[in-house]
Amino acid sequence: MILININLNGWQSKYQILTLVVALLVPLIYYLYARYVTSRPNRYNGAEEPIKFHVAVPEAAAPHWKGRRLNPPSIRLADDPSSIQSYCPATGQYLGTFMAHTPYDIDDKIDRARRAQKGYQTTSFMVRRKLLKTLARYIGDHQEDFARVACRDSGKTRVDALMGEILVTLEKLNWIISNGEKALKPSQRPGPAHRLIGILKQAEVRYEPLGVVAAIVSWNYPFHNLMGPVIASLFTGNAVIIKCSEQVVWSSVWFLKVIHAALKLCGLNEDLVQLCYCFPDTADHFTLHPGLDHITFIGSKAVAHKVVASAAKQLTPCVVELGGKDAVIVLDDVTDTIQSLASVIMRGTFQSAGQNCIGIERVICLPKNYDHLVSILESRIKDLRLGSDIDQLDEIDVGAMISDNRFSQLGDLIEDALDKGATLLHGGKQYHHPNYPQGHYFEPTLLVDVTKDMRIFNEEVFGPICTIVRSRDVDEAIELANSTEYGLGGSVFSNDFNAANDVANRLKTGNVAINDFATFYVCQLPFGGIKKSGYGKFGGEEGLRGLCIEKSVVMDKSLFRALGVATSIPPQIDYPIKNDTKAWTFVSSLNKAGYDTRTWEIVKALKKLGK
Amino acid sequence: MILININLNGWQSKYQILTLVVALLVPLIYYLYARYVTSRPNRYNGAEEPIKFHVAVPEAAAPHWKGRRLNPPSIRLADDPSSIQSYCPATGQYLGTFMAHTPYDIDDKIDRARRAQKGYQTTSFMVRRKLLKTLARYIGDHQEDFARVACRDSGKTRVDALMGEILVTLEKLNWIISNGEKALKPSQRPGPAHRLIGILKQAEVRYEPLGVVAAIVSWNYPFHNLMGPVIASLFTGNAVIIKCSEQVVWSSVWFLKVIHAALKLCGLNEDLVQLCYCFPDTADHFTLHPGLDHITFIGSKAVAHKVVASAAKQLTPCVVELGGKDAVIVLDDVTDTIQSLASVIMRGTFQSAGQNCIGIERVICLPKNYDHLVSILESRIKDLRLGSDIDQLDEIDVGAMISDNRFSQLGDLIEDALDKGATLLHGGKQYHHPNYPQGHYFEPTLLVDVTKDMRIFNEEVFGPICTIVRSRDVDEAIELANSTEYGLGGSVFSNDFNAANDVANRLKTGNVAINDFATFYVCQLPFGGIKKSGYGKFGGEEGLRGLCIEKSVVMDKSLFRALGVATSIPPQIDYPIKNDTKAWTFVSSLNKAGYDTRTWEIVKALKKLGK
Repeated sequence: MILININLNGWQSKYQILTLVVALLVPLIYYLYARYVTSRPNRYNGAEEPIKFHVAVPEAAAPHWKGRRLNPPSIRLADDPSSIQSYCPATGQYLGTFMAHTPYDIDDKIDRARRAQKGYQTTSFMVRRKLLKTLARYIGDHQEDFARVACRDSGKTRVDALMGEILVTLEKLNWIISNGEKALKPSQRPGPAHRLIGILKQAEVRYEPLGVVAAIVSWNYPFHNLMGPVIASLFTGNAVIIKCSEQVVWSSVWFLKVIHAALKLCGLNEDLVQLCYCFPDTADHFTLHPGLDHITFIGSKAVAHKVVASAAKQLTPCVVELGGKDAVIVLDDVTDTIQSLASVIMRGTFQSAGQNCIGIERVICLPKNYDHLVSILESRIKDLRLGSDIDQLDEIDVGAMISDNRFSQLGDLIEDALDKGATLLHGGKQYHHPNYPQGHYFEPTLLVDVTKDMRIFNEEVFGPICTIVRSRDVDEAIELANSTEYGLGGSVFSNDFNAANDVANRLKTGNVAINDFATFYVCQLPFGGIKKSGYGKFGGEEGLRGLCIEKSVVMDKSLFRALGVATSIPPQIDYPIKNDTKAWTFVSSLNKAGYDTRTWEIVKALKKLGK
Repeated sequence: MILININLNGWQSKYQILTLVVALLVPLIYYLYARYVTSRPNRYNGAEEPIKFHVAVPEAAAPHWKGRRLNPPSIRLADDPSSIQSYCPATGQYLGTFMAHTPYDIDDKIDRARRAQKGYQTTSFMVRRKLLKTLARYIGDHQEDFARVACRDSGKTRVDALMGEILVTLEKLNWIISNGEKALKPSQRPGPAHRLIGILKQAEVRYEPLGVVAAIVSWNYPFHNLMGPVIASLFTGNAVIIKCSEQVVWSSVWFLKVIHAALKLCGLNEDLVQLCYCFPDTADHFTLHPGLDHITFIGSKAVAHKVVASAAKQLTPCVVELGGKDAVIVLDDVTDTIQSLASVIMRGTFQSAGQNCIGIERVICLPKNYDHLVSILESRIKDLRLGSDIDQLDEIDVGAMISDNRFSQLGDLIEDALDKGATLLHGGKQYHHPNYPQGHYFEPTLLVDVTKDMRIFNEEVFGPICTIVRSRDVDEAIELANSTEYGLGGSVFSNDFNAANDVANRLKTGNVAINDFATFYVCQLPFGGIKKSGYGKFGGEEGLRGLCIEKSVVMDKSLFRALGVATSIPPQIDYPIKNDTKAWTFVSSLNKAGYDTRTWEIVKALKKLGK
């Protein structure tokens, strides 16, 4: 204080200080500015500026395209078992024929990916971000192209594609662009708890590319499911082989074209991303391949068993993302917000015709609002329109399903429920669309008074069926929610946040949204289920790190390195051991001195160590 | 500045300020003190004070115990295939006979564990830490008991037990006591990258107990391998079933006694920790069990294939920790420190008779110090003495191996190497100890000029064999180190830290120690290998979180919750959709507004959204 008083006695001193400050600050500011401009990406140096490019959209995705209709449509050709036939599930229109990949093709793809990865693994995050920014800009500027291609191959509506394919892909791209590098920076760790060793050693975990990783992805979001692993794998420095579903080969091939164009523009090897498609009999060759360092599987439980059994033979690590039986729990206090809640249930159930791994499979409602909620849903579901809106000929809400091969299964589930006392308020069967007789449509369905003993309560529906379950109280609601073999996601709605949060804590699932539906997915939290919904995480920090060698590294602390002090084996335990008793005393005292919490014991141990 | 000047004009003002400060500080200090004393564990409230107890050591671990010797010793009884016979591998002395667990026993244990976990899962970290502190204190105060029991059952030396069993267990206990709660606190995440959704939503990952977890552990560290999973599982709120090796049943039973005594004293259910032992034919019943939420496997690759194949059938997540072929890379500049480096190689190779998953399996030495290093190692290895030191009758360095069933395999590896040009400088065969003819000893062995084409270069030895490989330069050394199918750990030695660090970065392994051996293990970094060394991590933060439901939770930001603002489905996309074109414009503009990086595009999109 006194010092300040003296210095500030007159204007002259103030002026001197000012001069000094300015003289110090100017070079500092200039230095920081120069560093900023040269080393970080920004609009001055354009280091990560997205590159412009264009990839033509296939003819079949063009507006008012008239393609011939297959009758009946099928992905298999009777006269050619080695080819996959693509068609539009909403209209039955033929899209193309693709030779299924052979074991030889698969070997070649994995081999080329490995060679490409060697040159790619040491690229900087700036290079990788530039690639992701280029893709993000292209997707954002061509939303309609991507939506049309995805709609054609999956039969979904354009709005469903915008939300389920494009929004989530842009979110993943942008999240990684913003947060990816931070997630992959070496993570400093506390080091040893031992009082003495802890002084000497420092420890960290470094994240390095695994090599060639694979993703076997499901057909329900052909664009997003393909892009997700590509983005994460490329950002972590890996090459990636995508095995797409044989249901969506046509669109996957075009998505790959876009990715390859972006890779090429950014000066990177196109071989880094490979697409593979084949029928299940060849798929074993892929999952058993010794050239894969990691497998991400997104699909059904039945196929998962085969994939992990194959991977077990090679000890390939797997992330397994299967279905769920996600419940929405509606507490009694939602009366005021029940219309908005009904909107959430509608979207959670019917988006993409219910073909969502995190779709709402069960609405578990407490007594107070049960009847009201049912009546709101009934009136809304009755108004849902099925069809194809790719050319906006109709105003529709719900698109086609990918195939007609599960209609009888859905029918069986509904029949079983009705037999056991459920009530069908709407829908319940296949829908023969007058304009698209070859399309695969199922009526939006409302099934109420569903109980625990029904198959539809326990088995995944993966279709446009809204199932309402009555529950006595919160405890029963949670018990019901947790009572299936699945544990993927869930939601809870209440105006009392603490009550909702308590339910969230008691749900046995990998993901929970409070007063919302599935937003855990949108916001790049690590995603994955428990129980029969699978294991491992993709997305978020965990997803990125999971595609890396998580390398634990330990070294002498930098201070000691600077001083030239290095740890070594203490002479008492150096082989050959001079004196067994002394060695014993030394190590047992080291254990005491390092870990005991009583001062006197530590002092005694240190004294013994000093001898 | 002016304000300070005025206030500090006289003593009176200073006195006033002082009074004010004291008046504010006193209640604050008292409040903090009260909070400290009541809420946190400390020596005033004793909330986490370890409890004293005593468990008698089995007679066979008492000093100068005279047990009858089996001849030949075997864990199988010819006349009773349902029993496991324990004996001391160093002396052949009989320790006890144990009924192997039946499938019925296994069901019962898992069932009891599940019931116990229900009451345990909500206990506080203080309760769990008190348990760990009680165990840590007991182990620290009874190092000799634990060492003697471990030595008797595994044949290792007392110093090996102190380091490999007790030090590492105390480290794990103390690391979790200090850092465990922090690792399991909900982890706040950045939330959505979307510019608008990101304003509204907050996201976190919560860590909740999985339920009943299993650990199948190897015999090489009977105490540490059993305690590690017990500590991590109990701290994360799980119950745990340990399947110990049939080689070390006798000691495992006593270690369980200690754990159960500590649980009981801390008022916890003893059923939380179960021990299971059986022959391989029953082990399938265990690994296939639907009641296990997670399996940690520590053992050999051959058994791992069976375990993960079983787990695949139940989709049980696994952490797989297998062997390695860890290399020590010796750079050319270590001339001054070569004696200390030789000490590290000696301990890394011969501790626990080389039966370490992270033991040094290959020394890859650059030309300059090769001959000198070999001559130092030769003279030291010649002086190593084999035997049993449990009663300190002899001064010894290296103990017995667990069994004699791998001696011929080790012999074959050496013979193959000699055929292909390696030189045997010491050892190379079984050792018949004059005092312990039934003991399983193998001579400390030095094999030099080992090359890539030899089996011993590629196959895990897991025994007291020091293997020296010559390498031309750093690049070749790294290539050699990375050329096996394993990828567990590795070390590099150089006086130039940057050179060493560069090698560390290029090693394809899960763990690396720079200028040290295996310290990554001691200091509670996440531990695990890549390639055929397994996958997944135990230890450290990752190990703890891996035993949890890693639950991704998303909710409205607390500010919005406080304001009563809740997110809802925008009317444009509310089912049934009013206008398809408006819905399209809304979502595509939402994507643009949220993710585009060009100001003008964002403004245009926001304008469209506003309509």
